[in-house]
Amino acid sequence: MILYDFEKAPNARRVRWFLAEKGITVETRQVDLLGGENIGPEYLAMNPRGLIPTLKLDDGTVIDESVSICRYFEELHPEPNLLGRDAKEKAVIDCWQRRAELDGLYSAALAFRNSTPVFANRAVPGCAEPTEQLPVLVERGVMLTRRFFNLLDTRLGETEYVAGDRFTIADITAFVALNFARWIKLSPDEKHTNIARWFEAVSARPASRA
Amino acid sequence: MILYDFEKAPNARRVRWFLAEKGITVETRQVDLLGGENIGPEYLAMNPRGLIPTLKLDDGTVIDESVSICRYFEELHPEPNLLGRDAKEKAVIDCWQRRAELDGLYSAALAFRNSTPVFANRAVPGCAEPTEQLPVLVERGVMLTRRFFNLLDTRLGETEYVAGDRFTIADITAFVALNFARWIKLSPDEKHTNIARWFEAVSARPASRA
Repeated sequence: MILYDFEKAPNARRVRWFLAEKGITVETRQVDLLGGENIGPEYLAMNPRGLIPTLKLDDGTVIDESVSICRYFEELHPEPNLLGRDAKEKAVIDCWQRRAELDGLYSAALAFRNSTPVFANRAVPGCAEPTEQLPVLVERGVMLTRRFFNLLDTRLGETEYVAGDRFTIADITAFVALNFARWIKLSPDEKHTNIARWFEAVSARPASRA
Repeated sequence: MILYDFEKAPNARRVRWFLAEKGITVETRQVDLLGGENIGPEYLAMNPRGLIPTLKLDDGTVIDESVSICRYFEELHPEPNLLGRDAKEKAVIDCWQRRAELDGLYSAALAFRNSTPVFANRAVPGCAEPTEQLPVLVERGVMLTRRFFNLLDTRLGETEYVAGDRFTIADITAFVALNFARWIKLSPDEKHTNIARWFEAVSARPASRA
């Protein structure tokens, strides 16, 4: 199998981190996302959605959603468990993973993709059709990212990690979201002391540098 | 447990359909999404994200992502299986579920929320902060929905159902996305014959009327 990767891409980092927590090594191929290689004819022939990361299995199956790639490896390498063990834990981890992704990571991405010059006419990730940047979406992305900071800080005042009392995929997504937000000069406020405590603990994990 | 529901909401329909496929009955409470009850103080005290559907467990745990709610019930009631049985199937179903959701349902929602008068200043689902409608996002949502139609039709030319040779959660999401797109007068083209074949087959399922 091959993992199509781009070192700087937040979504690609999520998958690399997940694999590193499990001690899994996969053959990777770098795709130049900044240069638009992901929406070039060769890559689109492999994956019409143009997304990175993408896992291509030996039988040709293409899995191009970060969480779905993680789910594949969780099934093959169950330990350490990062997606939950019983019905409630699986649902809660999945839910927090999605909150961190949809409210956090995608909001930061909205602001980033609509403001960074290299993504002019590529405001929608993976979309080969030209999509212009809309300054009003930067403002919206910033507002929604700040809203996520508040949600996350409240949560981390109640639990040690994002989805409960242990490290899971929800922490990976939330951490990557926060790190991505820095690219648009957006950080939690001084008042977000719970985030600060958690961020330091998660930063110390060796796999965070994958 | 209580399922907070709104009969007309596409996301709520996904969960009701999933439950109906499994023959599960849950106590529900209707929340008036059109009237803004979901971003009123009472509902936000229960769920600060203001989203519907939301499942509240007896211990107070709040699960407010449709797919996470489905995952919870899949674990408790494994048959009929709708999320996959082995690593590859789980990953492929999850991936197609997400494609249908992110590329299909969310794109239709982008166009719908930015154009429907009742959602003036509520363009972002669940967001209590006023968010104005942006006409340019209607155009973008329509473009992305059409892009999804092409992706889906190509897929359904290769497989009987969205994620493979049997009905899964990916069919529910894709079907609800297509149905939602009709609200903004958007339907697959004549050329999308694979979608037409599949749509008719899936429509015939009794649970589709849940």
